[in-house]
Amino acid sequence: MKIEYSLLKTDKNTKARYGKIKTNYGEVETPMFMPVGTRASIKGLTTDQVKQCNSGIILANTYHLWLRPGEDVINHAGGLHKFMNYNGPILTDSGGFQVFSLAKNKEKDITEEGVHFKSHIDGKKLLLTPEKSIAIQNKLDSDIAMSFDECPPASASYQYLKNSIERTIRWAKRGKAVHSNPNQALFGIVQGGAYEDLRKFSAVETVKLDFDGYSIGGVANDGESKEDMYKAIDYSIPYLPIDKVRYLMGVGDPIDIIEGVIRGVDIFDCVLPTRIARHGQAFTSHGKINLNNAKFIEDFTPIATDCDCYTCKHYTKSYLRHLITVGESLGGSLLSIHNIRFLIKLTEDLRQAIKEDKVLEFRNQFINKYQNKNTD
Amino acid sequence: MKIEYSLLKTDKNTKARYGKIKTNYGEVETPMFMPVGTRASIKGLTTDQVKQCNSGIILANTYHLWLRPGEDVINHAGGLHKFMNYNGPILTDSGGFQVFSLAKNKEKDITEEGVHFKSHIDGKKLLLTPEKSIAIQNKLDSDIAMSFDECPPASASYQYLKNSIERTIRWAKRGKAVHSNPNQALFGIVQGGAYEDLRKFSAVETVKLDFDGYSIGGVANDGESKEDMYKAIDYSIPYLPIDKVRYLMGVGDPIDIIEGVIRGVDIFDCVLPTRIARHGQAFTSHGKINLNNAKFIEDFTPIATDCDCYTCKHYTKSYLRHLITVGESLGGSLLSIHNIRFLIKLTEDLRQAIKEDKVLEFRNQFINKYQNKNTD
Repeated sequence: MKIEYSLLKTDKNTKARYGKIKTNYGEVETPMFMPVGTRASIKGLTTDQVKQCNSGIILANTYHLWLRPGEDVINHAGGLHKFMNYNGPILTDSGGFQVFSLAKNKEKDITEEGVHFKSHIDGKKLLLTPEKSIAIQNKLDSDIAMSFDECPPASASYQYLKNSIERTIRWAKRGKAVHSNPNQALFGIVQGGAYEDLRKFSAVETVKLDFDGYSIGGVANDGESKEDMYKAIDYSIPYLPIDKVRYLMGVGDPIDIIEGVIRGVDIFDCVLPTRIARHGQAFTSHGKINLNNAKFIEDFTPIATDCDCYTCKHYTKSYLRHLITVGESLGGSLLSIHNIRFLIKLTEDLRQAIKEDKVLEFRNQFINKYQNKNTD
Repeated sequence: MKIEYSLLKTDKNTKARYGKIKTNYGEVETPMFMPVGTRASIKGLTTDQVKQCNSGIILANTYHLWLRPGEDVINHAGGLHKFMNYNGPILTDSGGFQVFSLAKNKEKDITEEGVHFKSHIDGKKLLLTPEKSIAIQNKLDSDIAMSFDECPPASASYQYLKNSIERTIRWAKRGKAVHSNPNQALFGIVQGGAYEDLRKFSAVETVKLDFDGYSIGGVANDGESKEDMYKAIDYSIPYLPIDKVRYLMGVGDPIDIIEGVIRGVDIFDCVLPTRIARHGQAFTSHGKINLNNAKFIEDFTPIATDCDCYTCKHYTKSYLRHLITVGESLGGSLLSIHNIRFLIKLTEDLRQAIKEDKVLEFRNQFINKYQNKNTD
């Protein structure tokens, strides 16, 4: 079966939604943060360690897995779940974002057919089309596949964006036509920058194609402002059906997650928690802290006393700082566990706040604490 | 209390010994392989993951911890066990081996007082003496500390070795005189290369100082032959008391462990299992395999079907190969778990063979399989 979304409760004062998604790998609740396993591995963590963070859906990247080890290897393994030993739902992106951001020397040629580009690994010439992206994802056998879209830069002009959206809709139609995995949902993607009419046009036309869920893209590009991100959400959400999952792509800042939820978004993904972890940064309710800071040399308390993650239950800031400063990879792994758990816990708290119609109070309290008492 | 060693059984046909070591952190059995946590971290693994390999004693490096984070930080944390969250016995080396092998540009000046050298991190001038090494280890609060010794290169002349041993004995005496941690055992180190008279002299004189255990050093230098290693053991063991632990330093090749046990050695340590793991190599009963090999691309079986480690229970060679070839650190961590478990299991099997007086049969069967059916 494909996924089934149930909207169970909407917050009285905002558009925040509490819901459940039934999948072939268990039922998960929304709002939800999805950790990213770019190359079929959430950096440095076993899938048991990820599960211990109370993860629901996790993400994997079509572009990276297409290049290495190749979708056929994963298909022969029995699909991504078996290949990477994750017994929970998996979402694959379309590869579009990576083609636009990673392609060698950013050399790429966008045609109606698809995108010609050079591999970021060996410079080999490649072509990714809507059909190819879906074919790869069908083979990866993720629970949710994404339509192949163009991800225009934040600086794109109105006219460029308009043409791009129209092509992305044609691409979405072509991808849907070849999608053939009966156990895989397919999501459409709404683009349109911070333009109200373009977001509306993109949302309405994409919804006409009747996808299993919808995502809001183009909000996590370099140079995108927070204001534009919130506009992009506000201009898209009214045109998305209430009985389908809404996914804000590439967003993992705690405040952005809260603002997204308030605007009606259900699921989020981002490399942020694992990337900042490898640089020694950890989320706390009082803001981010940097473990490289000398003040933690003899701090024998956990990152956060109110955190239930494995790292906070077993390790001190002093030890984590030591690992990070000497370059032991365990440091990044332990901080990743903490940061992933922090964002998952945040969405758990948001679910509770929705059930109690207290989302605005929760936001205000969280932001006050997070922004004003930044300890580093 | 300090450690207490009990010799429980000797193999009928060899010098192989089965014994137990009582420590403040539990009782452990010998023969035993000790995983190495150079900088208070067994690379890429949580201490729970290490424990899951059925680890007993683990190792940490005095030299590295002295430089970063410093012995005072660890002392203020409550000692090494609390600092790194390992609830089992820990052995610290003396720092000698690292001073001789890592010092910047190998510039070092060996005097009667100690060794003047430059930090491998920042080139800072440092002096490590027998008293300093013991003082650091006292503060680290390991269960077993090692005497500070000179580690001469394999190429050292007879005369150089003789002088070196005499100084190492004077250093051992000085270190013992200042050792002051009532919960920490102190081991002496036998040197002497592959010379029978030097090993005898070193062993007899070191034993006169009455240490809590004895190690055989100078067998894991670059350029040391296997033959010389076995000679070094054979020439030292007869002069070591049977009621004290015997430790062969820096040895982790499976066959060398078996040969060491047969010659009367109890405990071993080596970075080998974790180092080769990061390069994609895994121990199997049929020899080492290299996961980089293309033949594993679609090999959906575990590294070893007869292995009970976490990695073999959860991951395939195909997936591990993918992680190693794309450079995901999880690959090295998972192979480290397997390799550490392999060596620990080997010593468990040796214990059983000693109990059954079947050590020689075990050796022959193991070596036949390991050397003749190397699959890579």
